[in-house]
Amino acid sequence: MAPSVSYSMTVRLEVPAGGTAVSQLTTVVESSGGSVTGLDVTASGHERLRIDVTIAASSTAHADEIVAELRSIEGVTLGKVSDRTFLMHLGGKIEMSSKHPIRNRDDLSMIYTPGVARVCTQIAEHPEDARRLTIKRNSVAVVTDGSAVLGLGNIGPKAALPVMEGKAALFKRFAGIDAWPICLDTQDTDAIVEIVKALAPGFAGINLEDISAPRCFEIEARLREAVDIPVFHDDQHGTAIVVLASLYNALRVVGKRIEDIRVVMSGAGAAGTAILKLLLEAGVKHAVVADIHGVVHAGRKDVADADENSPMRWVADNTNPEGHTGTLKEVVVGADVFIGVSAPNVLDGDDVAKMADGAIVFALANPDPEVDPAAARESAAVVATGRSDFPNQINNVLVFPGVFRGLLDAQSRTVTDTMMLAAARALADVVGEDELNPNYIIPSVFNEKVSGAVAGAVREAVQATGKSALSEPARATPTQP
Amino acid sequence: MAPSVSYSMTVRLEVPAGGTAVSQLTTVVESSGGSVTGLDVTASGHERLRIDVTIAASSTAHADEIVAELRSIEGVTLGKVSDRTFLMHLGGKIEMSSKHPIRNRDDLSMIYTPGVARVCTQIAEHPEDARRLTIKRNSVAVVTDGSAVLGLGNIGPKAALPVMEGKAALFKRFAGIDAWPICLDTQDTDAIVEIVKALAPGFAGINLEDISAPRCFEIEARLREAVDIPVFHDDQHGTAIVVLASLYNALRVVGKRIEDIRVVMSGAGAAGTAILKLLLEAGVKHAVVADIHGVVHAGRKDVADADENSPMRWVADNTNPEGHTGTLKEVVVGADVFIGVSAPNVLDGDDVAKMADGAIVFALANPDPEVDPAAARESAAVVATGRSDFPNQINNVLVFPGVFRGLLDAQSRTVTDTMMLAAARALADVVGEDELNPNYIIPSVFNEKVSGAVAGAVREAVQATGKSALSEPARATPTQP
Repeated sequence: MAPSVSYSMTVRLEVPAGGTAVSQLTTVVESSGGSVTGLDVTASGHERLRIDVTIAASSTAHADEIVAELRSIEGVTLGKVSDRTFLMHLGGKIEMSSKHPIRNRDDLSMIYTPGVARVCTQIAEHPEDARRLTIKRNSVAVVTDGSAVLGLGNIGPKAALPVMEGKAALFKRFAGIDAWPICLDTQDTDAIVEIVKALAPGFAGINLEDISAPRCFEIEARLREAVDIPVFHDDQHGTAIVVLASLYNALRVVGKRIEDIRVVMSGAGAAGTAILKLLLEAGVKHAVVADIHGVVHAGRKDVADADENSPMRWVADNTNPEGHTGTLKEVVVGADVFIGVSAPNVLDGDDVAKMADGAIVFALANPDPEVDPAAARESAAVVATGRSDFPNQINNVLVFPGVFRGLLDAQSRTVTDTMMLAAARALADVVGEDELNPNYIIPSVFNEKVSGAVAGAVREAVQATGKSALSEPARATPTQP
Repeated sequence: MAPSVSYSMTVRLEVPAGGTAVSQLTTVVESSGGSVTGLDVTASGHERLRIDVTIAASSTAHADEIVAELRSIEGVTLGKVSDRTFLMHLGGKIEMSSKHPIRNRDDLSMIYTPGVARVCTQIAEHPEDARRLTIKRNSVAVVTDGSAVLGLGNIGPKAALPVMEGKAALFKRFAGIDAWPICLDTQDTDAIVEIVKALAPGFAGINLEDISAPRCFEIEARLREAVDIPVFHDDQHGTAIVVLASLYNALRVVGKRIEDIRVVMSGAGAAGTAILKLLLEAGVKHAVVADIHGVVHAGRKDVADADENSPMRWVADNTNPEGHTGTLKEVVVGADVFIGVSAPNVLDGDDVAKMADGAIVFALANPDPEVDPAAARESAAVVATGRSDFPNQINNVLVFPGVFRGLLDAQSRTVTDTMMLAAARALADVVGEDELNPNYIIPSVFNEKVSGAVAGAVREAVQATGKSALSEPARATPTQP
């Protein structure tokens, strides 16, 4: 791993004013594999300097090693070591603010009682006005039970909160949406459904986050029936949309049609199942899924024994038309596309070499992909990962802000495959013909066109499918007579 | 009613440039009982002026009348009429914002993945760190089911949202707290308890709001047992604290001791019951409560028939030691204090005249008090209401921000009567000996000392009673080695 800002620390040191101590610092950090990203002299005297050195390491253990090396330099005194990532989290990453100042009695009379009563009455008489006169229009609940957080697993609702805050911050940064974290102290499916149903009046959308499979499927399906606002499990559908967008462009690179390709997937969890469904909607005819037990097919005992409505049975019924059995390594031979959302190093470079010409490899396990990307690149035409230190990072941040922006602007009552397909197509199209190449199939997270393009496509799809809560054109500013 | 900014509108008019049309406008508004609070010429020509006139009216109907009068002025053309209160509500009154900019990959790596994972791991291993490393420390959920909103009754969760947003804005304005509205689409007691329990991990406090009696008693009591953060029903306890603070100072004015007074209350709802409980905690020995059926006593049929654990039975068992029966008007004779949290005009000036010398009257029904304050002032020594257009406004805004500030700063696991008594005493003490008089028993909402004084007293009470979640002194900035 390269040194990363996410393992970045600021170390306070005192060193002799003369001599080579300062240059020694830099040498020691770099020879330890770290990287000096900042060096500020915070106090200076004839004898001693106080220096704050900011250092990127590649892991917590690596950071500890670097600190130990610094400590051993002759004449250097080590002060406080501050972890930059932790510093950014102190007191939380988001806040609530009032849009209007409350300076005096007049402001108070309009924002709160007695003036607010007239607004309440208006909404009681015309519930559709809630989207006009309250935060509902632009608010999304980021809901988790903490059962499948990042790669950390079931760490519970409190430990999940930093991720949900980060998500809320991204919603604002990339789409101007007001999101608030809702971290639930229950992992009971029925309870989560009832709670989110009850929360719906104050929000225009629900972003489910980091809820483990298979509960996430049922929770989402039941909520979509129950509430009149879109419910989107980002781990599933955000991932599916960005994968499909990347696949659209990878196919442009290699000159193949989506109808013709044979896709092999590794992983049948929440993300895998959602990707598969969206690929089938997008026209993929030949897909095979493998999990830890090998290729999924109806004859496999655990599949045959699974509940009729289980995701596993759905996979078996909707993939593998040729009736493959065996292992992932066997079935990937001759495949056009490999998509991994599973575990590190399930394939090697030789496996990729046995794929069809113009092979496409999306190895999305984080931080260690299904196949070493460098090895995959030796024979594959296009390689993408979930990591930021390789080309073609497949990152949900490209999707969820724009998707919700579009849903909210169109006042959508739901989110459908049609809307998700439109989002994927719009995201793919952000990469122009003149920009497209094997190392650039997907735009950067900071590409300013992304969110607007995705939002526009989703908004049009909502309008085209008649799923908007707007029964009539938006009214102008409220007026009397 | 006097013209109020909460019925304020801006009217766009075109008038002849010469002549008396402009002065006629002002005359017409004032002769209609309105008040011109702003007049802006927004376009001017040789022939015509375009003027935006901002007018305060005393009701919606009154605003309509004024507009009709303006329309009838010779040569005046009426344009758009904008309601200022509604304009302030367009799109909602609060928003979420990120505390840190997200400018580049480095920022993203610390705020979101991969850096955030280390923070999550830290909290998973040390759950108490959630208060240090997340928004939990400063976040309050403002929870309602929309069943008893202001004086509007059961208008449901969507229509309640403007009040909850206003409350959140006040939390920030007066105490720097990040509150978010949670408007629940259920009025089932069990469901509300389960939902709020599940929401608790992400918040440091729960402010219940506008939930109807008697459900609010049970919901609050069960939640206090179930969660490790304070649960405070503002309609009850916020009101009780501000009433007690006002009573402390009114008693200073009339020179009576709380142990000696006879208190008569009108209303046994959520607020009434909470006030009563806190008064008894504060040392009141003689209290009598009347409701719509007259004085509450154990012999009354509906009281005797009520459930053993009902608030009504509690009132009967804890008040009226002299065994009064009959009507409110009968029992108020000779009383030292009248506190009304019930309905308009249940008493008149003659009733107040029959109270003891140095009578104290708190007539809190809104917008029309239990007794006309002007009539009450003829014989009572101190009169307070819930209205902003009379002296001594008894307003919860004086209480809830500071109470929660204190609870959050002390990381309190609960809220107790001791803390509420401390809050009332601190609020009363904001009015100095040299300031105290019959028309100034309670400070203004905008008095800058209030929130800090209340917060400090509550914080000390939490610490003194050992109810803090702080098992050890707050740690310094997270550091390595």
